[in-house]
Amino acid sequence: MRVSVIGSGDADPPAAEAAAATGRLLAERGHVVVCGGLGGVMEAACRGASEAGGRTVGILPGDDPSAANPHVEIPIATGMGNARNVLVVLNGDAVIAVSGSTGTLSEIGHALDFGRPVAGIDTHDLPGVEAVETPRDAVEYVEANG
Amino acid sequence: MRVSVIGSGDADPPAAEAAAATGRLLAERGHVVVCGGLGGVMEAACRGASEAGGRTVGILPGDDPSAANPHVEIPIATGMGNARNVLVVLNGDAVIAVSGSTGTLSEIGHALDFGRPVAGIDTHDLPGVEAVETPRDAVEYVEANG
Amino acid sequence: MRVSVIGSGDADPPAAEAAAATGRLLAERGHVVVCGGLGGVMEAACRGASEAGGRTVGILPGDDPSAANPHVEIPIATGMGNARNVLVVLNGDAVIAVSGSTGTLSEIGHALDFGRPVAGIDTHDLPGVEAVETPRDAVEYVEANG
Amino acid sequence: MRVSVIGSGDADPPAAEAAAATGRLLAERGHVVVCGGLGGVMEAACRGASEAGGRTVGILPGDDPSAANPHVEIPIATGMGNARNVLVVLNGDAVIAVSGSTGTLSEIGHALDFGRPVAGIDTHDLPGVEAVETPRDAVEYVEANG
Repeated sequence: MRVSVIGSGDADPPAAEAAAATGRLLAERGHVVVCGGLGGVMEAACRGASEAGGRTVGILPGDDPSAANPHVEIPIATGMGNARNVLVVLNGDAVIAVSGSTGTLSEIGHALDFGRPVAGIDTHDLPGVEAVETPRDAVEYVEANG
Repeated sequence: MRVSVIGSGDADPPAAEAAAATGRLLAERGHVVVCGGLGGVMEAACRGASEAGGRTVGILPGDDPSAANPHVEIPIATGMGNARNVLVVLNGDAVIAVSGSTGTLSEIGHALDFGRPVAGIDTHDLPGVEAVETPRDAVEYVEANG
Repeated sequence: MRVSVIGSGDADPPAAEAAAATGRLLAERGHVVVCGGLGGVMEAACRGASEAGGRTVGILPGDDPSAANPHVEIPIATGMGNARNVLVVLNGDAVIAVSGSTGTLSEIGHALDFGRPVAGIDTHDLPGVEAVETPRDAVEYVEANG
Repeated sequence: MRVSVIGSGDADPPAAEAAAATGRLLAERGHVVVCGGLGGVMEAACRGASEAGGRTVGILPGDDPSAANPHVEIPIATGMGNARNVLVVLNGDAVIAVSGSTGTLSEIGHALDFGRPVAGIDTHDLPGVEAVETPRDAVEYVEANG
């Protein structure tokens, strides 16, 4: 399946570590990582997936595909700014949120609106978001519900 | 100023009443109501504003401007589905949320991401959303912070 | 009806004059001018319509409504870059192209794709675009076919 | 490089054949095919590329990735309707148009607006579009100019 990994573009070390572990696990289990293509959680998730031989898609706000972090295999430029957040979650069968701020909140809203299952590690506490402790819990949740 | 009024497309009577009162107050104070153009909270806010002689803009998910509720003065079709949520909040100097579900959550996320002040009546309890009791409180909050 | 007036953002004097006359005529006949909100043909059309007491809508590529030319009554910010071209023609019942370059070409393509009638003054020579000599001819064509 | 192959969703046999040959050549030379993900020219180009072991990206108008033709390796759903045309050409370093109607015209307009080189096989005759006879000519043109 394809899993959108969302979170802040300037993640602190624990968030980056969780995102990298999430990406790695997703790749090991044969899933594609979809993200917003930039830094922080997005980059860590792509790095984790990429190091495990997995596929990564980065859907960017700007119009330059080369703005993607170096671990994005398939960059998609949109030039649409924050409206690209909609595409990030639309292209996952499920969503894992790691930490994150207001942009992540908008993506969680869209994900729930599209009926996607959402697992969250240290993120917004919201109805519909399954709060989990570890990347493994997150991946298992989305595998069971995606 | 322009104020985005957001909330569910199938509001219950108290939410519709609050939205209508919000629209009316905004119009009486010379503000433009921007919304998603459909039913429920959106329609009630437009009705309130329209009855008070105010201007209403409805930014629609579909490609048919005539799908707007009858109290929208300026319908804008987008054909972009939920990505139009971004435009709804982008075109307000401030946002008032009335009740609402996951679509509203995505709009709150985008609004906060754009740095818009957000007042909420019986809506998601989130940092950055000023919870208020009445339409008057909501309008005064956005006037003071927009 | 609503008529999208499209053309270059840096129109030469004859194009600006034709656009202004088109805007004026549309307003005199009770139509709303929809455009891309910026300079050149867009600004001239809005100026003509505005001076004749008509309504003008400007759908902008950027995220700042105040970037609209001063004759836009209702600015709509999109933050979507050139994807806003689609919205410009989607929100007209018909389209009048005045001169214009590649951006205008994309709008003509979308307009024809949406089945909108298109009149053109000194613009791309394309099947489906009714080449006319004067603003009056253009307005009469779209009134007859919109 | 990435090359956007654009054209009608219901191509006649010669157009489909040219599109398939174009996709095959692009893949053989190590390029990625980007397209609108649906049938006709898009499907033929993806089939050609895919049979030659190349990579294919399909950027879809709807919100369901499974609507992509079976030769799309990486489907990207947008839910944005025709506004996705912008993304199709934005994600190619160059564009090859094969036959095509008004949707293709809009894409050519956007491509030229973004400054992309455009080669055309039996398509719209427009300044800026290099009319070529064969898929090989098209690929060589975009390689030399992309």
